[in-house]
Amino acid sequence: MEIKVLKDILGVNEQLAEKNRQLFDSKGIFTVNLMSSPGAGKTSLILQTIEKMREKTKIGVIEGDVSSSLDAEAIAREGVPVVQINTGGECHLDANMLHQTLSKFPLQDIELLFIENVGNLICPAEFTLGEHKKVLVASVPEGEDKPYKYPLMFHTADAVLINKTDLLPYLKFDTEAFSRVIKEINEKVEILQISCVTGQGIEQWASWLLTQMSQRQGKKT
Amino acid sequence: MEIKVLKDILGVNEQLAEKNRQLFDSKGIFTVNLMSSPGAGKTSLILQTIEKMREKTKIGVIEGDVSSSLDAEAIAREGVPVVQINTGGECHLDANMLHQTLSKFPLQDIELLFIENVGNLICPAEFTLGEHKKVLVASVPEGEDKPYKYPLMFHTADAVLINKTDLLPYLKFDTEAFSRVIKEINEKVEILQISCVTGQGIEQWASWLLTQMSQRQGKKT
Repeated sequence: MEIKVLKDILGVNEQLAEKNRQLFDSKGIFTVNLMSSPGAGKTSLILQTIEKMREKTKIGVIEGDVSSSLDAEAIAREGVPVVQINTGGECHLDANMLHQTLSKFPLQDIELLFIENVGNLICPAEFTLGEHKKVLVASVPEGEDKPYKYPLMFHTADAVLINKTDLLPYLKFDTEAFSRVIKEINEKVEILQISCVTGQGIEQWASWLLTQMSQRQGKKT
Repeated sequence: MEIKVLKDILGVNEQLAEKNRQLFDSKGIFTVNLMSSPGAGKTSLILQTIEKMREKTKIGVIEGDVSSSLDAEAIAREGVPVVQINTGGECHLDANMLHQTLSKFPLQDIELLFIENVGNLICPAEFTLGEHKKVLVASVPEGEDKPYKYPLMFHTADAVLINKTDLLPYLKFDTEAFSRVIKEINEKVEILQISCVTGQGIEQWASWLLTQMSQRQGKKT
């Protein structure tokens, strides 16, 4: 009974996600669903990406949080279009929440849309939004064991960004071993090491994004 | 409709939690529901607490994770009774999962039971388990803004342990400001600063636990 309800919910979500994806494609918008634990650095990554890519592409941001508009305020200070979704108690964004929000968004002014999901390594992995790529930000203070504990999230990600590498000298964290475990769960995943404090890896991240965007553009035409 | 279903689920959960609480009280077991983001240090805290308190009280542990038994294995190496609950996809423990597990547990050998919840700052706050105290481990790399984003978790906690203080020299994190915001949300909460690497604050944490246990014992007799 419970499973049936969940299947229905996920089925309806999938249909709405497809609608969102069609809308993004019709407008030529490449969308990234950014997911992570609380405080892994999603907003800092978006801010770094805006700084690096604002001359190359038109960026927009949708911020998802249970509560508060702190992240949207930080993005708005950069002069980038942004909308905050507050989920109330919900622990993830879903395709319907996104769909409702898109109508309030200046889609014609955007080529690259970041959707920052609610900070949670579990439920956001189950709800596709209509994004083109799912990107997981994994921060080194969280420890090496996370792929074992949250396998679905690591399995569904198109890219994993290992963030806060500036803290590596002060922690027991083996990035090689961590990457190896991720690859066992998800063979095709792209793995990048970044620091939103020092800027390490942001150039490679921007290149990866631009490649994905042009590949998508190539598919359409 | 959706709200009705959720109310039913929470109502049933509350009833089962009360059963669990009665069982704990009948056996003289003090229980702590440990909650946090992924990788904030719940297991490390339990290991430190075992080291500090094993001569003073008989400890047992129930480990909750979506997947894997890594944490239970780490606890078992300390020679402490432990059971792992794997929730499958579920993002929190509930009173029923705990109830099912208690029958397999040597309750007669335990005075202090830690229930390590699934790493998630949202849903675990909604599901009481029958615990005597809810303790939130908040780690400094997650940033100061978490109480604004996850208010229910900070509101329901009886104690907040600010963990990984050994990383403070390398981060922008104002513990005074963080504590002030938590107190605004939750006036009566106990706040302690700890490091499971250096051992800072573990003595105070152990004292706090012993005080809670003896107060509970006093209430019963």
